[in-house]
Amino acid sequence: MRIAIIGLGQMGTGMAERLLGAKHTITVYNRTASRADGLRAKGATVAPTPAAAVRDAEVVLTMLADDAAVEQVVFGDNGIANAMSASAVHASSSTISVALATRLAASRPRYVSAPVFGRPEAAAAGKLYVIVAGSEDAIQTAQPVFDAIGQRTFRVGADASAANLIKLSGNFMIAAALEAMSESFALVRKAGVDPDVFREILTTTLFNAPVYHTYAPMLAHETDEPVGFAAPLGLKDVRLALAASDTLRVPMPFASTLRDAYVSALARGYEHKDWTVLARVAAENAGLNNGR
Amino acid sequence: MRIAIIGLGQMGTGMAERLLGAKHTITVYNRTASRADGLRAKGATVAPTPAAAVRDAEVVLTMLADDAAVEQVVFGDNGIANAMSASAVHASSSTISVALATRLAASRPRYVSAPVFGRPEAAAAGKLYVIVAGSEDAIQTAQPVFDAIGQRTFRVGADASAANLIKLSGNFMIAAALEAMSESFALVRKAGVDPDVFREILTTTLFNAPVYHTYAPMLAHETDEPVGFAAPLGLKDVRLALAASDTLRVPMPFASTLRDAYVSALARGYEHKDWTVLARVAAENAGLNNGR
Amino acid sequence: MRIAIIGLGQMGTGMAERLLGAKHTITVYNRTASRADGLRAKGATVAPTPAAAVRDAEVVLTMLADDAAVEQVVFGDNGIANAMSASAVHASSSTISVALATRLAASRPRYVSAPVFGRPEAAAAGKLYVIVAGSEDAIQTAQPVFDAIGQRTFRVGADASAANLIKLSGNFMIAAALEAMSESFALVRKAGVDPDVFREILTTTLFNAPVYHTYAPMLAHETDEPVGFAAPLGLKDVRLALAASDTLRVPMPFASTLRDAYVSALARGYEHKDWTVLARVAAENAGLNNGR
Amino acid sequence: MRIAIIGLGQMGTGMAERLLGAKHTITVYNRTASRADGLRAKGATVAPTPAAAVRDAEVVLTMLADDAAVEQVVFGDNGIANAMSASAVHASSSTISVALATRLAASRPRYVSAPVFGRPEAAAAGKLYVIVAGSEDAIQTAQPVFDAIGQRTFRVGADASAANLIKLSGNFMIAAALEAMSESFALVRKAGVDPDVFREILTTTLFNAPVYHTYAPMLAHETDEPVGFAAPLGLKDVRLALAASDTLRVPMPFASTLRDAYVSALARGYEHKDWTVLARVAAENAGLNNGR
Repeated sequence: MRIAIIGLGQMGTGMAERLLGAKHTITVYNRTASRADGLRAKGATVAPTPAAAVRDAEVVLTMLADDAAVEQVVFGDNGIANAMSASAVHASSSTISVALATRLAASRPRYVSAPVFGRPEAAAAGKLYVIVAGSEDAIQTAQPVFDAIGQRTFRVGADASAANLIKLSGNFMIAAALEAMSESFALVRKAGVDPDVFREILTTTLFNAPVYHTYAPMLAHETDEPVGFAAPLGLKDVRLALAASDTLRVPMPFASTLRDAYVSALARGYEHKDWTVLARVAAENAGLNNGR
Repeated sequence: MRIAIIGLGQMGTGMAERLLGAKHTITVYNRTASRADGLRAKGATVAPTPAAAVRDAEVVLTMLADDAAVEQVVFGDNGIANAMSASAVHASSSTISVALATRLAASRPRYVSAPVFGRPEAAAAGKLYVIVAGSEDAIQTAQPVFDAIGQRTFRVGADASAANLIKLSGNFMIAAALEAMSESFALVRKAGVDPDVFREILTTTLFNAPVYHTYAPMLAHETDEPVGFAAPLGLKDVRLALAASDTLRVPMPFASTLRDAYVSALARGYEHKDWTVLARVAAENAGLNNGR
Repeated sequence: MRIAIIGLGQMGTGMAERLLGAKHTITVYNRTASRADGLRAKGATVAPTPAAAVRDAEVVLTMLADDAAVEQVVFGDNGIANAMSASAVHASSSTISVALATRLAASRPRYVSAPVFGRPEAAAAGKLYVIVAGSEDAIQTAQPVFDAIGQRTFRVGADASAANLIKLSGNFMIAAALEAMSESFALVRKAGVDPDVFREILTTTLFNAPVYHTYAPMLAHETDEPVGFAAPLGLKDVRLALAASDTLRVPMPFASTLRDAYVSALARGYEHKDWTVLARVAAENAGLNNGR
Repeated sequence: MRIAIIGLGQMGTGMAERLLGAKHTITVYNRTASRADGLRAKGATVAPTPAAAVRDAEVVLTMLADDAAVEQVVFGDNGIANAMSASAVHASSSTISVALATRLAASRPRYVSAPVFGRPEAAAAGKLYVIVAGSEDAIQTAQPVFDAIGQRTFRVGADASAANLIKLSGNFMIAAALEAMSESFALVRKAGVDPDVFREILTTTLFNAPVYHTYAPMLAHETDEPVGFAAPLGLKDVRLALAASDTLRVPMPFASTLRDAYVSALARGYEHKDWTVLARVAAENAGLNNGR
């Protein structure tokens, strides 16, 4: 299949490599062109603009940082909206607002929201979870893409934005787990308990789940570098969850607390740390790192 | 071994049955004596007072509702403090404050804090997780008790109260997961998304852990009866976590939010519901149940 | 002076009447034209579009509901941006975002941010407080307008958006006072204390200030009709304060709590109540109104 | 009148001086005896124990730091409970829990809760506000005491603990005002706005009240020394408000936020600062003081 991939961050690059590996014909575009060098060496065509990338594509997969980037790539100069053929499917995997997803769905019948769960390692290994919503036939067309990048596809209906809401809710759930662990680790550490003892109890019993296996060791020791998912992206996703909660009129006190914690993280100069920086913020608020 | 068990709620009864099943010699005491009838029929001796229950015991296991009940049973009239032999071990499995655990440890060299994770079904099946702290030799004496009631014992050091802090932190983590799910379910439900779709995505991917398997189905549908762990006990444990956070000087904004949610649950008349009542509170706050 | 007034809500109408009373030449525009009838009868000219209203004006005063309305009136079809003479001053009294104020200031040298404190009664009586920022000469040109509508003008510098930030901070302070009182009244009421006793103590001693005199009697009795300032506008202003806090990286936990309280108020169906509805939300959360 | 005063902190000392000035016969007791030297020089008798201080007193005024101190002085060894004559009135001005006030009222018919609003300067000047509840005749007996220390007495009924609840609610209101200002000052400062400009607008318009006049200048500049009311006492009072909210089942999210802010203040080492330390915590959380 002829697939265009727009956006070559850590996630998009991993997806592109999986799709190359599945023998699809791949054209890529990235604002910073040099990020495409590795993919070109592996057989991808590199296009100079989004429009150029998508002209022949059967499926266009966009994986960009935020709403602004997606709006630019889709509706901006040399954007894909007018360059794609009418039969081509736009599958949007970026974590974007419910509002923008609704707008994208309104702009093209063959639009699929396809946000993913998983860090860059999962993308490179084809182990993502793909949450898919949109018209049945568009999903069928794009299914080979989802099969290549994901270990499992969850179909959540015809309303495209439902997939985005689920993605935002899931990221909120993860961030909430990070904060709950951050507070707990600060508490037990301050009592002199080895945080790894507490971590082992959690992750081998009630919280024996991937999220906790991935993050608990990082949080127990305030490990927030190297960055898998940056703190500003954590804030962005919480902000999008809050925007949805505002529109839908659902109070979310945990999300509000997370917002303030991430705002404080950035205020403290932790812009370039992983979103596990919540452990550092909690520890500082508890006076744990005074002696450093 | 001669074992006394004080406190025959759902948890204590399950423990007693396990210990009877393991062929120990069991004496029990409960304030409401009729709750001991079933155990008597299975071979337990029923004592009229805590003091009478423990006189010959090698290990005394207490499993009571709160600090006040433990204080009464240990230090009150006909309490166990003066009735136990010097060589007997007091193993306290109640979820109590760090402060009271410290006091219990100071009152008797052979004291072990042994709080447990698991609902009544787990107690009856010997599948609890037992968090143990105290002096090495006291733990060794009581180990057969822990083996009978639990699937695994975690030893967390010589400072008895560390086990209690870990228990409180763990319960806080569970309550935080309940609230995060409650907010998420309210959000997706209000958007018209089937909460079971969201639940399945969570519990088969990132949150594939016992806590989520147990609680997500209940929260998705505001199921808070029958009661496994009552809302006032949820509030009690959050309160104890906050008390520890105050003493140790660790801000815990999630715990504070949980406190207010549980206080509101009780204010709304939900005293006799499970601690999953958080889903109902979140739904009401989102205006979801107006039409009921 | 020839003055155009765009926006004839309760506030804008009161301002227009004050300016008519001060013998200025007034042209008005409102989207719903019928709201201008009373002012026409008092001598104002009614224009069919924003552009038509401002063509001859020396000062244009805009008093609109939110960012979207201001953007439409300024930059939309038949907007004022291109219709105003270069020498005319645009004085914006709407409570808008810091970001939009910055954009308005960038679009016209003679722009003044002039948000106001005071409810509709104060506007009608010329008793507003006007917070003014922008270029010195533009402020001087518009000063007669501020003198007519306000009892005092505070100049806060040349950066126009500073006035808007101060307005948002002030409204946040008021909303925070409303919530603090709402929680306190719920507390004392539930103990059986007459809320008016508590109110009198507050407002005659430490909190002897206009905000408390205005709102405490309403909050003590959950009076949220008739509407002086509607709950959705309260939410809007909190949202704008949070947007500024996000951009400036200042955590604001009280503002976050207020957001959730207002979101819940709207979710409960209280969209058409005054922003004192916080007292009702707090009372309901405390189970106070169950018997109603 | 023969008056005993127990507790000679800044507040108790000021009260004692006022009562000496009103020509009453004064006996004082303080745990650290040297704090009584100045009062002895002015004519007070200094007693070696609480019991000794109250034997001949017609009114006993206690002004102590917290519940533990009051319990010790009243019910402890050489306490006043058994030493006071049956006709003597115990007027308790300490800020204590509702629960302890209830217990004090149950222990003596002639008991009056008489908490006060005002900082030490107000005590020394006889300018306190006295909130009084208890039996009518006991209040009448003690009225000369209230007249000497206060500018006004508010009678709030026969249920003594109502006065304490009002005191705690009032202190919560003040702390909430401190936090709202702290967040606002951090916000405007980070935008480059002079905090004194914002302060002047607030305190000359909507928030023209003693609380704001006293505290806004301190908060605008993070002034938290010298200490008028120490941060740990601020935390203590928030804790007592939360205890009442728990018992009465009234969620208080602002109080919970204040608790966490004060816990963090102490964790950061600000135990010896004024309760205006909230401004410092908010500023640090916003990254304002990094360069210091």
